[in-house]
Amino acid sequence: MADLQPLRVAIVGLGTVGSGVAKILLENSQHIARRSGREIDVVFAIVRDPTKPRGVTLPDGVLATSFELMESPEIDVVCELIGGTTTAGDVVRQALNAGKHVVTANKALLCEQGDELFQLAREKGKTICFEAAVAGGVPVIEGLSQSLAANQIQSIEAIVNGTSNFILTEMLDHQSSYEDAVARAQEKGYAEADPTMDVDGTDAAQKLTILAQLAFGTKASLNDFPRQGIDKLKLADLKYADELGYRVKLLAVAKRNGDFLELHTQPTLIHDNLPMAAIYDAYNMIEIEGDAVGKTWFSGMGAGQMPTASAVVSDLIDLAVGRAQQTFPLLDLWGQSEPLRILPAEKIERRYYLRFHAIDQPGTISSIATILGNHEISIASCIQHEFEIHPADSGEGKASIVPFVVITHTTTEGQMRAADEELIQCDAIEPDYLRLPIQD
Amino acid sequence: MADLQPLRVAIVGLGTVGSGVAKILLENSQHIARRSGREIDVVFAIVRDPTKPRGVTLPDGVLATSFELMESPEIDVVCELIGGTTTAGDVVRQALNAGKHVVTANKALLCEQGDELFQLAREKGKTICFEAAVAGGVPVIEGLSQSLAANQIQSIEAIVNGTSNFILTEMLDHQSSYEDAVARAQEKGYAEADPTMDVDGTDAAQKLTILAQLAFGTKASLNDFPRQGIDKLKLADLKYADELGYRVKLLAVAKRNGDFLELHTQPTLIHDNLPMAAIYDAYNMIEIEGDAVGKTWFSGMGAGQMPTASAVVSDLIDLAVGRAQQTFPLLDLWGQSEPLRILPAEKIERRYYLRFHAIDQPGTISSIATILGNHEISIASCIQHEFEIHPADSGEGKASIVPFVVITHTTTEGQMRAADEELIQCDAIEPDYLRLPIQD
Repeated sequence: MADLQPLRVAIVGLGTVGSGVAKILLENSQHIARRSGREIDVVFAIVRDPTKPRGVTLPDGVLATSFELMESPEIDVVCELIGGTTTAGDVVRQALNAGKHVVTANKALLCEQGDELFQLAREKGKTICFEAAVAGGVPVIEGLSQSLAANQIQSIEAIVNGTSNFILTEMLDHQSSYEDAVARAQEKGYAEADPTMDVDGTDAAQKLTILAQLAFGTKASLNDFPRQGIDKLKLADLKYADELGYRVKLLAVAKRNGDFLELHTQPTLIHDNLPMAAIYDAYNMIEIEGDAVGKTWFSGMGAGQMPTASAVVSDLIDLAVGRAQQTFPLLDLWGQSEPLRILPAEKIERRYYLRFHAIDQPGTISSIATILGNHEISIASCIQHEFEIHPADSGEGKASIVPFVVITHTTTEGQMRAADEELIQCDAIEPDYLRLPIQD
Repeated sequence: MADLQPLRVAIVGLGTVGSGVAKILLENSQHIARRSGREIDVVFAIVRDPTKPRGVTLPDGVLATSFELMESPEIDVVCELIGGTTTAGDVVRQALNAGKHVVTANKALLCEQGDELFQLAREKGKTICFEAAVAGGVPVIEGLSQSLAANQIQSIEAIVNGTSNFILTEMLDHQSSYEDAVARAQEKGYAEADPTMDVDGTDAAQKLTILAQLAFGTKASLNDFPRQGIDKLKLADLKYADELGYRVKLLAVAKRNGDFLELHTQPTLIHDNLPMAAIYDAYNMIEIEGDAVGKTWFSGMGAGQMPTASAVVSDLIDLAVGRAQQTFPLLDLWGQSEPLRILPAEKIERRYYLRFHAIDQPGTISSIATILGNHEISIASCIQHEFEIHPADSGEGKASIVPFVVITHTTTEGQMRAADEELIQCDAIEPDYLRLPIQD
């Protein structure tokens, strides 16, 4: 063991996560060597701008600017930590083509180009590790790849976007508007200056495609399943849900349904006595149900410098030990098994929360009920409070607007979509009509 | 990959877990072969009584009664699933001496003889896998051994005895006495006819010694740290805790404290907004804090046939792939690193919940307060309700007895023990005085 050569690493990109990885490898080096059976050396840290401050002190000669150093015979593994998909894709291809293993935290890249990159890795006999791409420090990739391997996975339900979860927690806890909660998330470093990818559900959906491929062998692209963000939610929606005994969470779901796979990423009402409902702030939780193990939960910080770096370094340790190279060829990442086909969205069956701002005049509620009835959607319960809308919100000279919430019995997404078309045509209903699924 | 020989397994003991393992291996065989890169065959299932019904149909020739078959050249791995420590220890030694890998779910065995067995495995170049020994299907052993390997572990706090957790949940939810809740746990199959090992904290403490060794390299035996069961708790204690904003859980703790390791397994008051407080029924949860990843939580069913069998089969898959053989020599299981020494119990610092049944006469509370004050234990808050004790409970002819609850500020276990000695001498206090720690 003692005579094993060190594992030699090039870190490409020394931003938040990259410098966190360098920090762990330098500061915990003895501990890591013991867990790895050999040392893990940062040989190069390749950046565009070597003058930028990094928050980590690297040994002399490590900081470099040439991407060609990835191909050096002194390198065994390339850590792609620059983000984005264009240059990042090139870096991963260049590394694999040069015969290097790759560690990446880049879910957008894997979602977009994973199929091609995994294929290339297989051709080259190299390994791509991506524990950090989903839920940061929470070891859900290892969970699916190894720990729960005895199980046929039945379902995955996941809160994997910490930014959205922080915003939703902040709104309800501090009775904040969506806009104020976003501003607070930005102050605390949980949201980017442009938070679009987080709040519109893209980030969570990208992570879902990775989980779905690992657990069910199913390749899905972002357009193959319903995706909805938290950006249309109002504080009032969280309060109605609360009144009904639910929490609203941005939930990514992949669930076996006969020979099909049900997939969606949507803000969802979750009963407040379920573990998922208790996940607050920027924490993530992934619930995995296996046929033998039943339900298991993995939770922790899904983003942030050190949690993400922890996952990247655990991948490096798996490569140093040799486990990752053994596991990678056995993953269902190239349709080696018969994958489950994606259930057409129209056939997804759930209960729904419908929130209308309706003109307060005779016949409005009856119009809504009639449209739902025509599509065989039955109403389980409804809420209408007086004076819920501040007069200023309904505007001068307009008729008074009242919020009206309907909870449906189980129906299909197809029936709901057909009803939606008529509902949005209805003059008595404001265009901000909102529909959310309920996870029972 | 296709030409790899099957991994050949002898299951020793075909009780609940053993038959669950056989079931998964037979029913999920294709899925498991894909995850393992080769088949996993049950060659022998060795039992004492071959006529007993097993709930699983084995292929002809598999059921056997001779322990010598473990040594057969047709066997690669022995699964020790008979429980107990005497015969089980012999089985593991016989298997290792015959050059077989071992998978076991036996925490009592590892706690008692782990040191010797791990040493023997190392000498023979063989692997012992024990994912199922702690928290059943919840992959906390793999979490500590692999996923969180980049981290210096700071603390582990764990609910690992499902029986106790079920009883505590049942008591509070159904306002049951301890005895009624135990009976209910027995009806539901969560408690043995003799539940002593579960309810007196032994089982949880055994699991804690395994976690402490993996995470901190520290060898502890059961007498090295405070251990307390749930068998002295009354419903009233759970209700007082609830009133104060806490849940009572049987909590196993291993926590880095300077150069020392703080270890204890005790019913503990946990603030009701913490994730651990929300674990109900027979579920387990392990909170692991690492220096990089922060806090992570692993949760699921910690016992039961199929969850435990899921963990055993995941170990078999790890052996089939070859990962387990690479990981085992790198675990801190033989003091290869400098282990943390156990913090003397007297030096553990916490807040405490003290519950007295005191004689309702002038001066009683003052006696209690004086004794605590003499030991420099200061009182943070107290509860005394009227009419809490049913008159019948205090017995004929006795003075009226009132419950009195004190919450202390932070103090040491040593100070508390010294105070205990005086408190139990105090005539005004009933002998059922109860002291529980509070985890903040």
